[in-house]
Amino acid sequence: MKNPILVPELRDLLSKDKYEIIKNFIEEGHPKEIAEYIALMDPDEIWKILNMAHVSQRAKIFSYLDMDVQVEMVSGERKKTTTELLTEMSPDDRADLFHHLDKHVADRLLVLLPLADRRDILNLTSYKEETAGAIMTTDFSTLNENDTVEQSISKVRKDAPSKETIYYIYVTDNQGKLIGFVSLRKLIMSRPEMRIGDVMKKDVKFTYTNEDRETAARKIEQYDLLALPVVDESVKLVGIVTYDDAMDILKEEQTEDLEKLMAISGGVESGTYLEVHALTHFKKRAFWVIVLGLFGILTGVIIESFRSTLESLLILAFYMPLLNAAGGNTGSQSATVVMRSLTLSELSFRDIFKVIRKEFIISAFLSVCLGFIVFMRVYFFSSSGGVPEGISLTSVSLVISVSLALQVVWSTVFGAVIPLIAQKLRVDPAIVSSPLLTTFVDMGGILIYFGVAKAILGI
Amino acid sequence: MKNPILVPELRDLLSKDKYEIIKNFIEEGHPKEIAEYIALMDPDEIWKILNMAHVSQRAKIFSYLDMDVQVEMVSGERKKTTTELLTEMSPDDRADLFHHLDKHVADRLLVLLPLADRRDILNLTSYKEETAGAIMTTDFSTLNENDTVEQSISKVRKDAPSKETIYYIYVTDNQGKLIGFVSLRKLIMSRPEMRIGDVMKKDVKFTYTNEDRETAARKIEQYDLLALPVVDESVKLVGIVTYDDAMDILKEEQTEDLEKLMAISGGVESGTYLEVHALTHFKKRAFWVIVLGLFGILTGVIIESFRSTLESLLILAFYMPLLNAAGGNTGSQSATVVMRSLTLSELSFRDIFKVIRKEFIISAFLSVCLGFIVFMRVYFFSSSGGVPEGISLTSVSLVISVSLALQVVWSTVFGAVIPLIAQKLRVDPAIVSSPLLTTFVDMGGILIYFGVAKAILGI
Repeated sequence: MKNPILVPELRDLLSKDKYEIIKNFIEEGHPKEIAEYIALMDPDEIWKILNMAHVSQRAKIFSYLDMDVQVEMVSGERKKTTTELLTEMSPDDRADLFHHLDKHVADRLLVLLPLADRRDILNLTSYKEETAGAIMTTDFSTLNENDTVEQSISKVRKDAPSKETIYYIYVTDNQGKLIGFVSLRKLIMSRPEMRIGDVMKKDVKFTYTNEDRETAARKIEQYDLLALPVVDESVKLVGIVTYDDAMDILKEEQTEDLEKLMAISGGVESGTYLEVHALTHFKKRAFWVIVLGLFGILTGVIIESFRSTLESLLILAFYMPLLNAAGGNTGSQSATVVMRSLTLSELSFRDIFKVIRKEFIISAFLSVCLGFIVFMRVYFFSSSGGVPEGISLTSVSLVISVSLALQVVWSTVFGAVIPLIAQKLRVDPAIVSSPLLTTFVDMGGILIYFGVAKAILGI
Repeated sequence: MKNPILVPELRDLLSKDKYEIIKNFIEEGHPKEIAEYIALMDPDEIWKILNMAHVSQRAKIFSYLDMDVQVEMVSGERKKTTTELLTEMSPDDRADLFHHLDKHVADRLLVLLPLADRRDILNLTSYKEETAGAIMTTDFSTLNENDTVEQSISKVRKDAPSKETIYYIYVTDNQGKLIGFVSLRKLIMSRPEMRIGDVMKKDVKFTYTNEDRETAARKIEQYDLLALPVVDESVKLVGIVTYDDAMDILKEEQTEDLEKLMAISGGVESGTYLEVHALTHFKKRAFWVIVLGLFGILTGVIIESFRSTLESLLILAFYMPLLNAAGGNTGSQSATVVMRSLTLSELSFRDIFKVIRKEFIISAFLSVCLGFIVFMRVYFFSSSGGVPEGISLTSVSLVISVSLALQVVWSTVFGAVIPLIAQKLRVDPAIVSSPLLTTFVDMGGILIYFGVAKAILGI
């Protein structure tokens, strides 16, 4: 969140050349907080302030700025300061920035950088989006299994200023293949003369560059890791994903899931709710609202085809919203529960029959409750004259309550099965959003309703 | 997730007394994985296997077991091994276990423990659920600002085996008040003779024992921390929350939010979807399904009150599901977006007018799209005889499309405002679930529909 509170003070200090105060402020604070305070200033002002900080703090603050601000700031003509900043940024943040730059800006900046950085950027930006490769960083420490603990500690001490984390250090063989890891805690607890090969853990969790980024982040969460090593096809260590990036990814994926669930299209926007333009919000929501609107019209066509039934028994219209709502609610519930279990890898497609069985039992209970309530309501509290001659109130009550019960069972089981099928077809289960589900359940409900009416009343 | 795959092998090894193989297996593996493998064995078997591991690994594996298994295992008669395990467990996991024990079991176990551990348990279990105090651990390292870096490193080395983390170390004054922190990285990079007071960061993020646990977890996420110190009212350092616990909390809160959103009651169950009994699932879902069913009946009563309008113009019934669906969809969308922004602290109640303005604009666009489509549909594709004598098709088309447009605006704005109001009233915004919202939106929609019909057609 951007915080405008300090902008006037900072401007005032800048105009009065009180650099020492600003310098102290930006050196001491948390880089994220500083970024929030300066986010609303002009790029020129931000540069002025950033340049007062030590280059490592400067790069950290810069990485916490919104992507569009970052892009604007490096697109200008400040060769020297930009190069200095880019060289210092952590490789994953830098690759992310290059992903967002215009091609000609990126090319111009690339030639300013040392060869190693240039290669690193080209390498990291080559991984497909949403993969572990695209989010990993290349600033990691490695050790050799034949080093002693003492040698390793002094290597880590040298690495400390420049590496993303020094708390997990990976052990590679001479070909660079990942063979183990050792934590800094373990290192400082071990006797100085011991071999790394003897203190390291060989059972190291890792991921491949082309694995889904959410899967990688979940591994970090599940095994309480500080970092997860990323390897290529030959198990060569090429990067790491740190826990803080994993938290960000899980947060983004969660927002995406929630939005899909509510039929909102498109990825996560940079910028908060209020910052994003109304038209952008509209675009993200319009597609599904319109598609679902068309389905709604189709539902109307289905009802219209039962026009004569409805004309002779108008009371059915009074309970249509209840039927739709009950179907939508129970279907959304089961879909949500199953989807959540899929996300947390508690369920898979092969459990489909167990799921159907379980949801059938649950919905049978729900059906009995709801069916009973609505039977009572129709049978005892219908206004006189609601039912035409020749049809008994009992049978009308039966039609409505039986339809409701069937609708609940159908919706619940349908809602539970759809995410499983989506997963099997490698479609994101969250796409089967609650509104889309509700629409299908509505249509099914109408058919059930008039079908039951025909069966019981013959109209 | 429990993994039955190794259970037969482990039983076989146990029966053949091949302890070395088991010992090697449980010493080398990740404690969470080992816990998944042995989770489905009997408590006696689990004890036998656990006791082959070194006590620190044993405590870790034990903490990853489901709570009901943990409870069963310590409720037996194994005084010595239980005491050993409880002494070794990390304080937060242990306090959590004691929360779940029967009072007489807890009392019996407490007297077996050393005084310090007993006090620690009584202290940690005294914090209210859902607070930072209830999730913190007391195994943290502290330093004095007058110590040198060299002294501190050797203190950290001594602390390493027993502390939850040694990567963040907090600095306290002589009263135990939190005055700064230093990372192990910084420590090993600093010159040995420097004072801690000169290398520490004074701007340290912290939380209070009675703060909401989600707020604490969000701080860890936002500032990319490894741990967050927890202080009492006098800013005395009393515990820390680590990033891995924060990740677990955010995952639980996310599941809870999602369930509330879909009108599922109750907290997170221990055990996965398939493990939880159908009846438990039923109980969690029934309350809202029934409440919403009653509201659905009420909606029916409202429709019934417009019986004569509906009788004279049956075509209105065909478009009722569309109206309801459009209202539900757009309302859920805006509610979801606003709720998500509230969760991420991007919005607060004082933004309410900005939110209304924004949602009004978005919904106006949506209204125009949907209104146009449905006007075309009714005007050009209505079956002949759908409209009675004396009423023009144009005015009927107008009634339906204007109602739809108004319904979309009302639902969108209503959906966005409700979470803000809930937050203001200190009710969890997620409780205003999508189904509950849909129900209110449905009722409003019916009133709009027949109100517009009356206004335009005079029926």
